[in-house]
Amino acid sequence: MPSLFVIKIGGNVLDDATALHSFLADVATINAPKILVHGGGKIATQIGNQLGITSQYVGGRRITDAATIQLVTMVYGGLINKQLVAQLQSFGCNAVGLTGADGNIMPAQKRSVTNVDYGFVGDVLVHDVNTSLLLSLIQQGITPVFAPLTHDGAAQILNTNADTIASVLAAALSTHYKVRLMYCFEKNGVLQNIHDDESVVPLITPTIYHQMKTAGLLFDGMLPKIDNAFAAIQQGVHEVLIGHASNIIQNTTHNIKGTLITTS
Amino acid sequence: MPSLFVIKIGGNVLDDATALHSFLADVATINAPKILVHGGGKIATQIGNQLGITSQYVGGRRITDAATIQLVTMVYGGLINKQLVAQLQSFGCNAVGLTGADGNIMPAQKRSVTNVDYGFVGDVLVHDVNTSLLLSLIQQGITPVFAPLTHDGAAQILNTNADTIASVLAAALSTHYKVRLMYCFEKNGVLQNIHDDESVVPLITPTIYHQMKTAGLLFDGMLPKIDNAFAAIQQGVHEVLIGHASNIIQNTTHNIKGTLITTS
Repeated sequence: MPSLFVIKIGGNVLDDATALHSFLADVATINAPKILVHGGGKIATQIGNQLGITSQYVGGRRITDAATIQLVTMVYGGLINKQLVAQLQSFGCNAVGLTGADGNIMPAQKRSVTNVDYGFVGDVLVHDVNTSLLLSLIQQGITPVFAPLTHDGAAQILNTNADTIASVLAAALSTHYKVRLMYCFEKNGVLQNIHDDESVVPLITPTIYHQMKTAGLLFDGMLPKIDNAFAAIQQGVHEVLIGHASNIIQNTTHNIKGTLITTS
Repeated sequence: MPSLFVIKIGGNVLDDATALHSFLADVATINAPKILVHGGGKIATQIGNQLGITSQYVGGRRITDAATIQLVTMVYGGLINKQLVAQLQSFGCNAVGLTGADGNIMPAQKRSVTNVDYGFVGDVLVHDVNTSLLLSLIQQGITPVFAPLTHDGAAQILNTNADTIASVLAAALSTHYKVRLMYCFEKNGVLQNIHDDESVVPLITPTIYHQMKTAGLLFDGMLPKIDNAFAAIQQGVHEVLIGHASNIIQNTTHNIKGTLITTS
């Protein structure tokens, strides 16, 4: 099977114009099928504050009320997404910006209300992803750029975590491609010591993961990323790489600088 | 050649949730290749006001400064575009939202500064349009939904008049399709008497146009639309129809209710 890179870029890089410029220039040089998935960033909060929309969080998750879903539809789906597309075009990379509503690529279920009402948040399943448009774009040499938005099929846009979107897209496309899912952020990988950016764990297998987790050797903020990674691998993704955004090119090779997550 | 409808929907319909819902339900039932182009609407001005961005106009044209291009990228490319896509999906119409940056469909020239600096405004040419992605989407049964945004190829998003975008897309696709370009708005067509919505001019040819213009029988606000229409026809568009948004289905037939603009 041919290779495909599903590349997730997080908020801290989006918020740093210089780092972002350099990252996108690198992405444009990757001469292989690829999809870019982006998160939010501080700009959504800033514009929300200006509009009098204050973000509420429960358990680290944003509550997406009616005003907030309008805000993120504008900022994620419009401002950030189209600026990324225009920058990639300037580097000669033919990109197309998408959300889960476009081409009905990612229908979602509005999260049901239990103890907490998360509002307009969408939960997604790998088998609900419609890959035909993505496959057609990739075969045309186009790089899809995906905003963290889905829809419920009844005209409602929903907010979905970008790490989850990357993982679900990677899994859905793994029947057609050998997928390396790459989480790019502002650290060198999964760190044993959060204060030492050189303490990268080069390889995490399920066994290593459970040993390190039990021994408290992993930074809490990393756990959801690693859980997402194993979930993706169980659904067919070949391997998951967690690394610094500035190492993106090196991390498309076998000589990686970061953390490789694999089952074996 | 097969038929293609390029449908432009204006701000007044976008601002009326009930009219828009009904219009999109109708568009979804059109069982032929189609592209929807949308304008702005009051929501951009409202959100701009809340953000302290006041629109300046010269000669009826918005001056697009740095804050305004961010605003319209958010509102046109994100909020309006993705809500239209999600609504069309809810009616079973597989839509994909696009700007001129996506797939490099519509590269533009930033308007040069003469007497007036219009700011980040893009002028477009038919022969610069890259139709391959649009053709591929249409062949997949997908309806492109186009926001009035272009780009300069150097990472700058530009603001481009939606009527112009519709006209240029229609012309560019007329080598592959017999295109009917349809301007849908809140009046029944080109009116002889602006106060009488039944005074529709059913047919405008170049001869009729010059006669009516000379005699002062056409409402000034209609002239740019008619000029755009003739420009499109000169560039290969089969015919242009100006009519009420609520007559969209009837106006895809030969039994039109509105104004047909044609060379013969």
